[in-house]
Amino acid sequence: MSQQYVLSVLVDNSIGVLGRVTGLFSRRGYNIKSLNVAETENPEFSRMTIVTEGDSATIEQIEKQLLKLYDVTEVKRLEDAVCREHILIRAGNSPSSRQPIIEIANLFRAKVVNVGEDSLMLELTGEPEKISSFIGLLRPFKIDKMVRTGICALERD
Amino acid sequence: MSQQYVLSVLVDNSIGVLGRVTGLFSRRGYNIKSLNVAETENPEFSRMTIVTEGDSATIEQIEKQLLKLYDVTEVKRLEDAVCREHILIRAGNSPSSRQPIIEIANLFRAKVVNVGEDSLMLELTGEPEKISSFIGLLRPFKIDKMVRTGICALERD
Repeated sequence: MSQQYVLSVLVDNSIGVLGRVTGLFSRRGYNIKSLNVAETENPEFSRMTIVTEGDSATIEQIEKQLLKLYDVTEVKRLEDAVCREHILIRAGNSPSSRQPIIEIANLFRAKVVNVGEDSLMLELTGEPEKISSFIGLLRPFKIDKMVRTGICALERD
Repeated sequence: MSQQYVLSVLVDNSIGVLGRVTGLFSRRGYNIKSLNVAETENPEFSRMTIVTEGDSATIEQIEKQLLKLYDVTEVKRLEDAVCREHILIRAGNSPSSRQPIIEIANLFRAKVVNVGEDSLMLELTGEPEKISSFIGLLRPFKIDKMVRTGICALERD
């Protein structure tokens, strides 16, 4: 049964590590739904959050192969974790769409970060489902451009 | 002169595209400082934000080569953009560290998202410099684990 998995991977900050990690997925024909990677508190290491879909057996295989890479230090399949996503989105097609967009922003406690002639740029951080319904409500006002970070997650204590 | 660059790259959601994009950097010995990628409003496309350091001539080369990849649709070097980052961080080494950590959280309007026996998990979204000073202030309380999304950016109107 295909399911969504969130992997947290700690890697050395070596050149090409990102290619080695993502290569393990693509060689199996696995799509990475989202990924983000940045330095940790120790600049020698970076932490990645990878979201993928597949069956449990193949994910287990990928986890094992990831751990065999010399620059991968830790691999964890997150189950009980805090999951967040951040989005920047520009929407609106006329000055009259400004008011309803601001109302949606207020509902979600999103922040207006840039005001254009016809459009507004908003930012929002929250659970992935919240981000998705936010996008859904803005769709009628024409989404000009958007960028989301993908899920960023950390295990609960 | 080496400088930091933020690239916004729109790609087809095809398997292996992430490897092809990051491969262009590693083959030149270029480290990717941070990267995030997720679907756009159109599920056929994903948008990446890549942060790298280098000299202007090489970045230009990379941009041109990126555009030659069949699954890369758009490459933009962001100059006037809204840049944000999101962090999840767990800090604290004793119940008595809770109060000073909450004070720092309040200063930055960070949110407590999980409470452990000795530690707290906080989340914060903001400009990259703000995230860095937040981490700096938490360092004396022992950072147990953290994950940041890397810069996520969208051009101003």
